[in-house]
Amino acid sequence: MNLEHLAKQLAFIHEIDKLKYIQRKTRLFNSQRNENDAEHSWHLAMMAMVLAEHANEKVDIQKVVKMLLIHDIVEIDSGDIFLYDTIANHANTKEERKAAERIFGILPVQQKEEFIAIWEEFEEGQTPEAKFAKSLDRLEPVLQNVSNEGGTWVEFDVKYDTVIKKTNGMQHGSQTLWEHTQMLFEESIEKGILKRD
Amino acid sequence: MNLEHLAKQLAFIHEIDKLKYIQRKTRLFNSQRNENDAEHSWHLAMMAMVLAEHANEKVDIQKVVKMLLIHDIVEIDSGDIFLYDTIANHANTKEERKAAERIFGILPVQQKEEFIAIWEEFEEGQTPEAKFAKSLDRLEPVLQNVSNEGGTWVEFDVKYDTVIKKTNGMQHGSQTLWEHTQMLFEESIEKGILKRD
Repeated sequence: MNLEHLAKQLAFIHEIDKLKYIQRKTRLFNSQRNENDAEHSWHLAMMAMVLAEHANEKVDIQKVVKMLLIHDIVEIDSGDIFLYDTIANHANTKEERKAAERIFGILPVQQKEEFIAIWEEFEEGQTPEAKFAKSLDRLEPVLQNVSNEGGTWVEFDVKYDTVIKKTNGMQHGSQTLWEHTQMLFEESIEKGILKRD
Repeated sequence: MNLEHLAKQLAFIHEIDKLKYIQRKTRLFNSQRNENDAEHSWHLAMMAMVLAEHANEKVDIQKVVKMLLIHDIVEIDSGDIFLYDTIANHANTKEERKAAERIFGILPVQQKEEFIAIWEEFEEGQTPEAKFAKSLDRLEPVLQNVSNEGGTWVEFDVKYDTVIKKTNGMQHGSQTLWEHTQMLFEESIEKGILKRD
């Protein structure tokens, strides 16, 4: 039993409760209520387990789950950045790196390093696991928007070309999910809930 | 690519969004807001990864994470049963079993069977993984109640003897966490936020 570890771990568990207050722009399925980052992280982890067979490459799905559970924790400090934000950049910013140092730094040092490494792997998006995790992070809001008659596409007047540009990285993680997503885009255009420029 | 699988998997992903509406009696840390089951499941999965070293026996932590991510999904149909409910039984009821059949039954058959098996393993609480998962499910509300000046103990007038009876199973998963919890109980009694009978 390591009580010094335990104290740090419990402080971390307390701290990350704040993820439940970070509101995303996207709404729950068929809903007016915005999703928060904790719910989003749970849903993505479930998607990873359920959709594993559709990854392009063989992936360690446990690692993908872990990655998705922690991928947004930095937003406790830096806030959610909307995928279609035209000013703020979604990429790994100085602010996010500082947040990772502070929040994961609450943990015992070995765990801190392990969590930061897996968060960086996600952000860099180069490994099969990171690519698949990122595909799911792009897919969920598409499914939510389709269920919400356009959702953020309509609410923030985001057009087809922009949507394609922001989501087509999905193909690097899963060609199957990307093909399905393109089909959803076509249907959404027909229904008038996604507009061409 | 298996499109029949994909259609079923996406239907399941859509369905489980409802877990975000299932309110628990416990409140977020230092908060008036009730926690929902999706947030709770995310937090427990994080706790499993962070607290793994305190399990009594060697556990497959990936399995514990998976178990915790799905352990409350049946509550989409059966609703959350409050740990200190004096009428309803928290144990694996007929209603929960029916819910598991319906909700996991949306998935391709092999995945359905896999998820039901892991949910049953959790409910039965006999394996090292299930014991540790259950310990965490008992620990989280204790931490929340302590942070909320008694939380559900005060709100529903639940006394020390009952709390002990409902939480002491924790020791089968983690003696360390149980010892820490007992210390928290003692402190809570001193502060007057947990009452002896």
